[in-house]
Amino acid sequence: MSEKTLPLSPEELLKLAENIPTPFYLYDEKAIVENARRFTSLFSWAPGFRNYFAVKACPNPSIVSILGREGFGSDCSSLPEMVMSEACGITGESLMFTSNNTPPEEFVEAYRQGAIINLDDITHIDAMVEALGEVPSLICFRYNPGPERTGNAIIGNPVEAKYGLTSSQIVDAYRIMKEKGAKRFGLHTMVASNELDGSYIVETARMLFELCVKIQKEAGVRIEFIDMGGGIGIPYKPEQDAMDLEAVSKGMHELYKEIIIPAALDPLNIVFECGRVITGPYGYLVTSVRHVSSKYKEYVGVDASMSDLMRPALYGAYHHITAVGKETQAHDHIYDVTGSLCENNDKFAIDRALPELEKGDILVIHDVGAHGHAMGFNYNAKLRPAEYLLKEDNSIVMIRRAQTYDDYVATLRFDGAEVVL
Amino acid sequence: MSEKTLPLSPEELLKLAENIPTPFYLYDEKAIVENARRFTSLFSWAPGFRNYFAVKACPNPSIVSILGREGFGSDCSSLPEMVMSEACGITGESLMFTSNNTPPEEFVEAYRQGAIINLDDITHIDAMVEALGEVPSLICFRYNPGPERTGNAIIGNPVEAKYGLTSSQIVDAYRIMKEKGAKRFGLHTMVASNELDGSYIVETARMLFELCVKIQKEAGVRIEFIDMGGGIGIPYKPEQDAMDLEAVSKGMHELYKEIIIPAALDPLNIVFECGRVITGPYGYLVTSVRHVSSKYKEYVGVDASMSDLMRPALYGAYHHITAVGKETQAHDHIYDVTGSLCENNDKFAIDRALPELEKGDILVIHDVGAHGHAMGFNYNAKLRPAEYLLKEDNSIVMIRRAQTYDDYVATLRFDGAEVVL
Repeated sequence: MSEKTLPLSPEELLKLAENIPTPFYLYDEKAIVENARRFTSLFSWAPGFRNYFAVKACPNPSIVSILGREGFGSDCSSLPEMVMSEACGITGESLMFTSNNTPPEEFVEAYRQGAIINLDDITHIDAMVEALGEVPSLICFRYNPGPERTGNAIIGNPVEAKYGLTSSQIVDAYRIMKEKGAKRFGLHTMVASNELDGSYIVETARMLFELCVKIQKEAGVRIEFIDMGGGIGIPYKPEQDAMDLEAVSKGMHELYKEIIIPAALDPLNIVFECGRVITGPYGYLVTSVRHVSSKYKEYVGVDASMSDLMRPALYGAYHHITAVGKETQAHDHIYDVTGSLCENNDKFAIDRALPELEKGDILVIHDVGAHGHAMGFNYNAKLRPAEYLLKEDNSIVMIRRAQTYDDYVATLRFDGAEVVL
Repeated sequence: MSEKTLPLSPEELLKLAENIPTPFYLYDEKAIVENARRFTSLFSWAPGFRNYFAVKACPNPSIVSILGREGFGSDCSSLPEMVMSEACGITGESLMFTSNNTPPEEFVEAYRQGAIINLDDITHIDAMVEALGEVPSLICFRYNPGPERTGNAIIGNPVEAKYGLTSSQIVDAYRIMKEKGAKRFGLHTMVASNELDGSYIVETARMLFELCVKIQKEAGVRIEFIDMGGGIGIPYKPEQDAMDLEAVSKGMHELYKEIIIPAALDPLNIVFECGRVITGPYGYLVTSVRHVSSKYKEYVGVDASMSDLMRPALYGAYHHITAVGKETQAHDHIYDVTGSLCENNDKFAIDRALPELEKGDILVIHDVGAHGHAMGFNYNAKLRPAEYLLKEDNSIVMIRRAQTYDDYVATLRFDGAEVVL
């Protein structure tokens, strides 16, 4: 079971929704900070432990900076994310650049910042060296175990995945980089997404530990750190349990003692690049009921749309919904909760039991602190919503304003010169 | 069979891709104009025939204006689309406002412009009248046939659809509006999306014609126009045939003579709100090969991503790909064509037979003139691409610039005042 709580009292939330236009995102700083500290403390046995926050999950500098103050690095997937991280003071080896199908200018920016470059493909060695004009002393590779792992439902079968180096390439890759003059090495994988079974993460650690031993033996390369990737899920449904991270930590520690210490590879630094499990549960989408109507089914139309939160439409994902102030009423009405896009998959919930709702009711959509605002779009010319932060001192500040029509048409303004072929 | 042609010669396209940064969208004005004229001419028998272009499909004012000059109206789904249409000179009854779960401010804007308001729900009557403070003389309702139609694969089962008024509500709705003082009436439905079977469209006409007769009989309301909606598909795959629109027109004409004329309801104006079939085939996404690599499968990484074109990732949609300058080479390599997002569904094609490709090759992704650029997002901090128009005089002009980092962070700039509860 996972409890679906609100960051403010119902009275405070209703007052907030009166004072600022809905829909809006609200993040809970205190909960994020406490969660970040707990995550780090759980792995206190692990050498050089650190989480690089997956910026893509919640690319707001206010959130990235909060995590930076807690000692987190940034896991960046593109040039703009690196620029934003640097603006938050997270740079150098606090920045992990994990991309795929990478353009040269992104290698250059990562190298300029002294970031850890995590290569996704064996051909990227040459592409990177060509882009940089030199060989970085520190390099990481992403490993794709292919048929050796089954993957999970969301990330898909590793054999079908576009990511990483194969089992037959990975040792060669380290050998090549060593010959080119690299001195320090990392090993990364990412074989799960939104996984709740901790044993899958422990098995990933085993895979990487054993691969470290193999790389040492076959290429004479000592791995300085493993990057376990992200993929730790959160219990979107109340009846789900969060991953038992204590058990994961314990299981990884056992394997470390079983594999890494006897191989004389201790200390091996251990890092993650989690996003969802860090901020996911501590973001809330607050939306107002516009219409309650009866067609062939009962509908509650709200002022948020899939343009504000794509996961239900894109993945059929469940997000819990609380009717603020009606928490204790009988949930005896079955509704589809819809946005206003011209796509019938613009539904935040289908056949959801809720209390009887009416126009003006405030709904909170839970667990949107990761891959929420970040995945929104402007389809149907919907404008993107604002983000607010409930700070540790209980003040509330805007950390992103809502889009305006002027933002929407910003790229239509330019000098319309003809292209000469 | 549908031929997948290019709007320029291979030599011209390669030169264009040298001169402007890839990826970019390119639209073919001449083809769009010819197609718009053909569409209109096919229905020359139909009283008051007109297509209201679904702005959501390609919300670029340059495209909307081209169609406006061809006599098309605009079908708008939101306030920003209405503002944009008015800026293109398309306003008044040239503007069809077809929304759902509609906020009051959008009714107000539609009414201000004198647009045709197409109500999605019976409760929207009161919501609209409250918002406007008066009753419009012209009103349209969206009909959802529910169990009486099966829907098609993309739009889903009408019974599960959030749209429209039910069979038991639709007649009452006209009666109510007549009593409130409305004088002119339209009837709309939209029960298909990307449909290629013309008989489905003809059956929709039969449904609406019969409903016009019923509404006349039971509510004493004469329908002035039917809006057939959109939903006419395009042959994304070369082996598919385009819908036989001549047969559709002929079939509708037969039914008109069979149902509408005997009922003394002639003239009944007939309009559509098609987007995809108007511009879809005449937009091209031009992208450059970054990497060709071998993992457990063979991959071609291009500089476009699902952030530029969502349909393959969102719907598993097929888009044809031409390797420019290699059209006649043997298509004897099987590739996954991928973007660079951290989502494994960021693939423009899976197991696609193409000629052998190498870094720098230019690929054209076809049939992106509708629901292409419009559906892009900024996930992974990817910046949106530019749009260009190949004009009828063969000049090429930018009609939307590419996003910059400054655009990406624009909504992070504001006076960060505290919210007082």
